[in-house]
Amino acid sequence: MAETAYEKLSAKSREVQLVGDAQALLGWDQEVLLPKKAIAYRGEQMAWFSGWAHEQFVAPEVGDWIAEAESSCEGEQETANLREWRHSFDRATCLPKALVEEFAQAKVMAQASWAEAREKSEFEIFAPSLTRLIHLCREQAELWGYDDVLYDALIDRFERGTSSRQLSETLGDLRDKLVPIVEVATAKSGQALPWEGRDFPVEQQKAFNEEVARSIGFDFDAGRIDTAVHPFCSGMAPFDTRLTTRYDETDFRSSLFGVLHEAGHGLYEQGLNPEHWGQPIGNAVSLGIHESQSRLWENHVGRSRGFWEKWLPVAAQYFPTLTGVSVDEMYAAVNQAALSYIRVEADEVTYDLHILLRFEIEKAIFADELAVEDIPAAWNERFKQYFGLSVDDNSSGCLQDIHWSMGIFGYFPTYSLGNINAAHLAQAALDQNPEIAGQMDNGDYSGLLEWMRKKVHARGSILLPDYLIVEATGSPASSEALVNHLKSRYIRN
Amino acid sequence: MAETAYEKLSAKSREVQLVGDAQALLGWDQEVLLPKKAIAYRGEQMAWFSGWAHEQFVAPEVGDWIAEAESSCEGEQETANLREWRHSFDRATCLPKALVEEFAQAKVMAQASWAEAREKSEFEIFAPSLTRLIHLCREQAELWGYDDVLYDALIDRFERGTSSRQLSETLGDLRDKLVPIVEVATAKSGQALPWEGRDFPVEQQKAFNEEVARSIGFDFDAGRIDTAVHPFCSGMAPFDTRLTTRYDETDFRSSLFGVLHEAGHGLYEQGLNPEHWGQPIGNAVSLGIHESQSRLWENHVGRSRGFWEKWLPVAAQYFPTLTGVSVDEMYAAVNQAALSYIRVEADEVTYDLHILLRFEIEKAIFADELAVEDIPAAWNERFKQYFGLSVDDNSSGCLQDIHWSMGIFGYFPTYSLGNINAAHLAQAALDQNPEIAGQMDNGDYSGLLEWMRKKVHARGSILLPDYLIVEATGSPASSEALVNHLKSRYIRN
Repeated sequence: MAETAYEKLSAKSREVQLVGDAQALLGWDQEVLLPKKAIAYRGEQMAWFSGWAHEQFVAPEVGDWIAEAESSCEGEQETANLREWRHSFDRATCLPKALVEEFAQAKVMAQASWAEAREKSEFEIFAPSLTRLIHLCREQAELWGYDDVLYDALIDRFERGTSSRQLSETLGDLRDKLVPIVEVATAKSGQALPWEGRDFPVEQQKAFNEEVARSIGFDFDAGRIDTAVHPFCSGMAPFDTRLTTRYDETDFRSSLFGVLHEAGHGLYEQGLNPEHWGQPIGNAVSLGIHESQSRLWENHVGRSRGFWEKWLPVAAQYFPTLTGVSVDEMYAAVNQAALSYIRVEADEVTYDLHILLRFEIEKAIFADELAVEDIPAAWNERFKQYFGLSVDDNSSGCLQDIHWSMGIFGYFPTYSLGNINAAHLAQAALDQNPEIAGQMDNGDYSGLLEWMRKKVHARGSILLPDYLIVEATGSPASSEALVNHLKSRYIRN
Repeated sequence: MAETAYEKLSAKSREVQLVGDAQALLGWDQEVLLPKKAIAYRGEQMAWFSGWAHEQFVAPEVGDWIAEAESSCEGEQETANLREWRHSFDRATCLPKALVEEFAQAKVMAQASWAEAREKSEFEIFAPSLTRLIHLCREQAELWGYDDVLYDALIDRFERGTSSRQLSETLGDLRDKLVPIVEVATAKSGQALPWEGRDFPVEQQKAFNEEVARSIGFDFDAGRIDTAVHPFCSGMAPFDTRLTTRYDETDFRSSLFGVLHEAGHGLYEQGLNPEHWGQPIGNAVSLGIHESQSRLWENHVGRSRGFWEKWLPVAAQYFPTLTGVSVDEMYAAVNQAALSYIRVEADEVTYDLHILLRFEIEKAIFADELAVEDIPAAWNERFKQYFGLSVDDNSSGCLQDIHWSMGIFGYFPTYSLGNINAAHLAQAALDQNPEIAGQMDNGDYSGLLEWMRKKVHARGSILLPDYLIVEATGSPASSEALVNHLKSRYIRN
């Protein structure tokens, strides 16, 4: 039976996904369970899978199949799959193998030197590795090509279809509107927490988090929650989506909001069309859309007053220390805003300022306007300007994040896109289905989830992010909804 | 740089191991963590890995490399690797792909029909699948070839170098000596347990088991203990050996002896030479040797009086209900013997009678002396003869074990070889290093472990099982040491 070129591509794509999903389990296991001494061998295994996948993508017959299929493809789904296959193939094949290997090697070295630099707070230790990675990223970007500026080719790895110019407008506009909100929000935050002591046993936190995750729709027959140093979500197969969180026995908020955030990612993964698994359209479309789902459940749902009206009495059953705490006190406790040094600990109001700073630094690096050795000074100057704080310590400054040591540039802006998209989508869902608000006040999140399932999750990668947002909401994302949301939570209250 | 044929084989072998170890993680995860709905996809992944590995083994150039390397190989290790590569290659290539696939398919169907048959206790439901599997195993055995009887070719899958004739002698001899011990042991067992109620919280059991496992030498930086329905051990990489056990809150013995048994397997895995990983000689040599290590720590160490003199006070700290229990009472509680229906719950004295029964049935099947439809009657008749018990229910009789539904014939006898080898090795260790006995009474198991490390673990698959035993102990294994051990534990006491 003669297979068409499209069918051959589909079969190959599914095989690559099937094996890649095994690698995803290895990666998840490495973060959650792997015994200490087994790490080096796991590294060898991961490298084998990366090499195998790369070989599948760059095989010349794959290029032939794509060309043949393009000449006769029809329909929205086929067209979208071919768009993505073409994109992956072109990006993979234009890199010489030597460059791919050098980059892989450089990342391993850079992560080690970053870890040491961060521990000692000495940027100089990291600078040579960083210089090399930036050089290699530049080489790759030149080979991939770009329309406007080189940085665009890097952003494209994480957010298809956006550009440095577009991000500059979006994030610049957001910054102008954020500054006055930050001022008010940080001034009125800071009251003491309505609990103290080690009153949150881990087992109780686990049980409470699970009840909450279940209530927002996370399917435990198709997923799990485990413990890891860094919370993350891995959608490693259809019907296998795993979240992690971490526990603090003095404060349940850390694990709960970790779970709400990661369960948001998880709901997206669980809502992808399983019939499309193994095709590009069966995957999440971008980081900016993925982050919109995590932020939606973490911030728009989990930090709302309605949420705590419903869940505070339940929480008090798991944690007797919360008996007597009022909804107002709890609402304040989960919405404290403060100017602070560390991005991953930042609140909803100040978070995007952290991103803006990184975006501007990256933009300057790849425009050849900022030399590596000048990064700490540029960082600290901007930090003073945005946060009013002096950075005494590069570990709390430009060395705090792991991303650059992993060769990841152009990733940070997607966090802010996530915040913007979350608010924009939430607003559209409520505008289109006003009954959702009332449902949520009764602890029923099914209306909101259903809207996201239909408009976002099930659409997978059929549309590129900007088009997906317009299709779902009727308008392009702007910071308006996010700003309104923050104003109503921090100013009008 | 020209590689020799031996180097090419080594590289291929290591690659197959590296990828096979990823499959091992998928298999472990399936038993321990996998969400319910994800099982079908996991099955597809497992099949991909099996297919990939088979392709690596049967490639014609592998045969060429083996032939070339055989003409010039030198030294114990090279010779042993080539012996194993040749064996795997010949066994893999003489099977037509259609037969491999039909067998894989038949196993899936058979497991489902066995599960249903067992649930309903209706042998007829399983009979057609079993007939098909036996037929396919016979076909494979004919292609593999054998010297004496067809059953030998099946046994070879699990215990290289042994035969049906040799096993008949060994197990027949064991049976004759066991019968009088069983009589005495089962007559004097049966006193009530010195505890009752749900006094063994899972978290306490975990902590106690971990302390015990650590004390016998299990390395938690290179391994873990998790929870699963069926206790097992998976050595899935150098420095990554994972055990599972299960918990009963009314009785700590179930999880503890599960851990001691599986940690015995785990110590073997952790004691393999990591420099040989990826070569055949870096693997455990056979099931009969593997089981000797699990039985050693479970029975010879864990059920000894000396062990409980040391560990009873510690156990009482974890489980206050044990306060006041005497060493005699505990020793009796961990050494109860009884004639019973279920193999996996059988004690050390009666266990081998269960194996003997299965061995005789399998032998008769593959000698064409027993038709599938007559299996229940043959089973029940023999059970009455060996155990004095009538089987009213095939679920407690010939349907109790999963092995046949997995197409596994010739596996059961290795359990008894394990018991025989365990006693024989333990005896040799004590004869050669008499100080080990005193060390163990003080809770120091390092002498015993060191002996096993050197004589068994580090030797991997360099020698076939019979030769390994002779090298380690100076004599072939016989049931003498096992019989003496059981007599001293159950008769003289």
